Amino acid sequence: MIAAKRDRHELSDPQIDWVISAYTRGVVADEQMAALAMAILLNGMNSREISRWTNAMINSGERMNWSSITRPTADKHSTGGVGDKITLPLAPLVAACGGAVPQLSGRGLGHTGGTLDKLESIPGWRAELSNEEMLKVLQDCGAVICAAGAGLAPADKKLYALRDVTATVEAIPLIASSIMSKKIAEGTSSLVLDVKTGSGAFMSDPAQAGILARTMVELGKNAGVKTRALVTAMDVPLGLTVGNALEVRESVEVLAGGGPSDVIELTLLLAREMIELAGISGKDPESALKDGSAMDVWRKMISAQGGNPGAPLPVARENQKFLATESGRMVGMDAMKVGVAAWRLGAGRSRQGEKVQAGAGIELHAKPGEEIAAGQLLMTLHTDEPERFPRALDALAGSVTIVAGGAVNRLPLIVERIQ
Amino acid sequence: MIAAKRDRHELSDPQIDWVISAYTRGVVADEQMAALAMAILLNGMNSREISRWTNAMINSGERMNWSSITRPTADKHSTGGVGDKITLPLAPLVAACGGAVPQLSGRGLGHTGGTLDKLESIPGWRAELSNEEMLKVLQDCGAVICAAGAGLAPADKKLYALRDVTATVEAIPLIASSIMSKKIAEGTSSLVLDVKTGSGAFMSDPAQAGILARTMVELGKNAGVKTRALVTAMDVPLGLTVGNALEVRESVEVLAGGGPSDVIELTLLLAREMIELAGISGKDPESALKDGSAMDVWRKMISAQGGNPGAPLPVARENQKFLATESGRMVGMDAMKVGVAAWRLGAGRSRQGEKVQAGAGIELHAKPGEEIAAGQLLMTLHTDEPERFPRALDALAGSVTIVAGGAVNRLPLIVERIQ
Repeated sequence: MIAAKRDRHELSDPQIDWVISAYTRGVVADEQMAALAMAILLNGMNSREISRWTNAMINSGERMNWSSITRPTADKHSTGGVGDKITLPLAPLVAACGGAVPQLSGRGLGHTGGTLDKLESIPGWRAELSNEEMLKVLQDCGAVICAAGAGLAPADKKLYALRDVTATVEAIPLIASSIMSKKIAEGTSSLVLDVKTGSGAFMSDPAQAGILARTMVELGKNAGVKTRALVTAMDVPLGLTVGNALEVRESVEVLAGGGPSDVIELTLLLAREMIELAGISGKDPESALKDGSAMDVWRKMISAQGGNPGAPLPVARENQKFLATESGRMVGMDAMKVGVAAWRLGAGRSRQGEKVQAGAGIELHAKPGEEIAAGQLLMTLHTDEPERFPRALDALAGSVTIVAGGAVNRLPLIVERIQ
Repeated sequence: MIAAKRDRHELSDPQIDWVISAYTRGVVADEQMAALAMAILLNGMNSREISRWTNAMINSGERMNWSSITRPTADKHSTGGVGDKITLPLAPLVAACGGAVPQLSGRGLGHTGGTLDKLESIPGWRAELSNEEMLKVLQDCGAVICAAGAGLAPADKKLYALRDVTATVEAIPLIASSIMSKKIAEGTSSLVLDVKTGSGAFMSDPAQAGILARTMVELGKNAGVKTRALVTAMDVPLGLTVGNALEVRESVEVLAGGGPSDVIELTLLLAREMIELAGISGKDPESALKDGSAMDVWRKMISAQGGNPGAPLPVARENQKFLATESGRMVGMDAMKVGVAAWRLGAGRSRQGEKVQAGAGIELHAKPGEEIAAGQLLMTLHTDEPERFPRALDALAGSVTIVAGGAVNRLPLIVERIQ
């Protein structure tokens, strides 16, 4: 099979079924799967192969069943970015509009944060639920955000850990099948994908992000899941906060009817896509933010998982200012550099299993488009360990572009919409 | 480094040194080296990278030192084929002409035989020698054929075992560096390469075999070893025997001044190249075959390693005839099919460490160019285990092409000569 893909042949259905099953059982060794993954990265897979590969990964584990839920299920997946806290306000918002949102989420790695890491900054909140607990929270609240169980697509878990150490993460067929195998196994009936593009995204090139989005939409449709994708901007951080507790605070502001305009706009756009795809009509997510019904779901959902939605959020022990060194218009802010700085402050992890700091991260006090004066406060850096400041500041070198009279150079919030 | 080669960048000298050293020490995992090997196979390495890779593998272990030998050292390496027993008559022949031949050899895998497996069919003969024993046999006899010690290019041993199970054997940069790291570490001052091509060879395409040959000649010259290569025919088996003891018998016939013409011709051609490259003049290898001096070296060399050159060779317990089913001219004989049949009879192994049968193999009673009558004996199959005959006969289906009045379709013995 390795030789076949190496020599640009198609893999047959039985070959794909066999290799995924044999790898999960340990019959195919890590070094053999690594060679195959590199051959797939360099020589590709066609849509039949990707579809079969995805199915084989789904079949390596259990499938969730939400048939006891009477509301239509709606799920969302983001490929991850800097300051991307959208899941936090979005899940209770869609629930407030009548959807059931089973949001199985992950932890962060590298410069992008993870939804579970963010929520774990809320005192008492628990990410790990049994399947029964998950169903109960979803039934009682209309939304649940928790860790995916070990029984869901175990082949993907093993393969992802291997790809992470063998430079084979960046293969569109493997990215698409990894994401979609988990999402399809989660058993949602509709799915909206938020594929990020720009410097802070996994797929920095918008054309590549579009290919990934179309591949995933096709996989979803083949599996009977109503699927749409938005390719959205991640050249600039989302909102005004990057870091776990800082992002929870901003999410709560949005649920309270405030918050930064880009976070509000993307939350509402995704909510409308999810509601429409789930077949819900006559509901306006904007009013669910204004009338407090989304906030009610949030508080109930956090409480149901042991969290105290009213408790003060952790604050880092130390902070440092980052000032503008020149005057002019801010025309760009590099999401990757800000993400790396937040990671270095302790908000992110370098290895699976590493602890993250709840309070660490960055507050942004200005965004592209604003006029800046030299000496003006641009960011506040937070960490419990002040020895982390120098390397974080190194990462921020050149992160902000300020010029006299230049035009703002950034992606539109929605780069592409794929139905 | 994996990502760099995946993205078609050059690897730097320090990167190459590090990865070979780290892999040998177990710091780089098998799955990481497998992904890198696949990226090298698909994206290539330039001549600087191949040269550095080879050096790093040499530096992973010891280098042999023959400075106490007064004769010029001359070595030969064949990439392996079906019935390729040339090392057996060649090493004593070159020694009889005044060269010192330190022939560190390997065992067979798959359809090609190994020099050590062949010699081990001689009762008492020992392949494993200490460095001191090796030097003594070379000093006393002018030639030594033995196993390469574990201290020689250990990085290559580990990497070859990995490539074997990850479909990354067929990468010219990795083949060339594997062969040349061992040959350069062996410390010979001159080297003649016999690169086989045709169906029974590792590199069936003559153009690819030529690229491999030129890559290796360049590596040898860069390392200060006088190196030449012949690309030679392996579309048809060499000689009239395939199998361990059968090939020793044929080699002894050549040393006695007889034997099949193709084996004699290739042995003499390679001997002349080795003698010339070693700077020996006024010696005629043909007369060393006729006057018995090459046979004298053979007997002395076999005895020095515990073998009894006069003892009868093992004969397989069972044999079966393979007859022509039609009349006409034999225009082709597929070396691969004959090699696979001999392997299935027990002459070869499927896995490193497996035992082989000394007496198993195939005697050929006709070769391409001969007129054949239906019912004529074409081959005799030998094995200790008669249950092996059916699968060996399956492999021989279509191995011989007999047509009425057709032209012989085979490669010239010497396809290309690279100086």
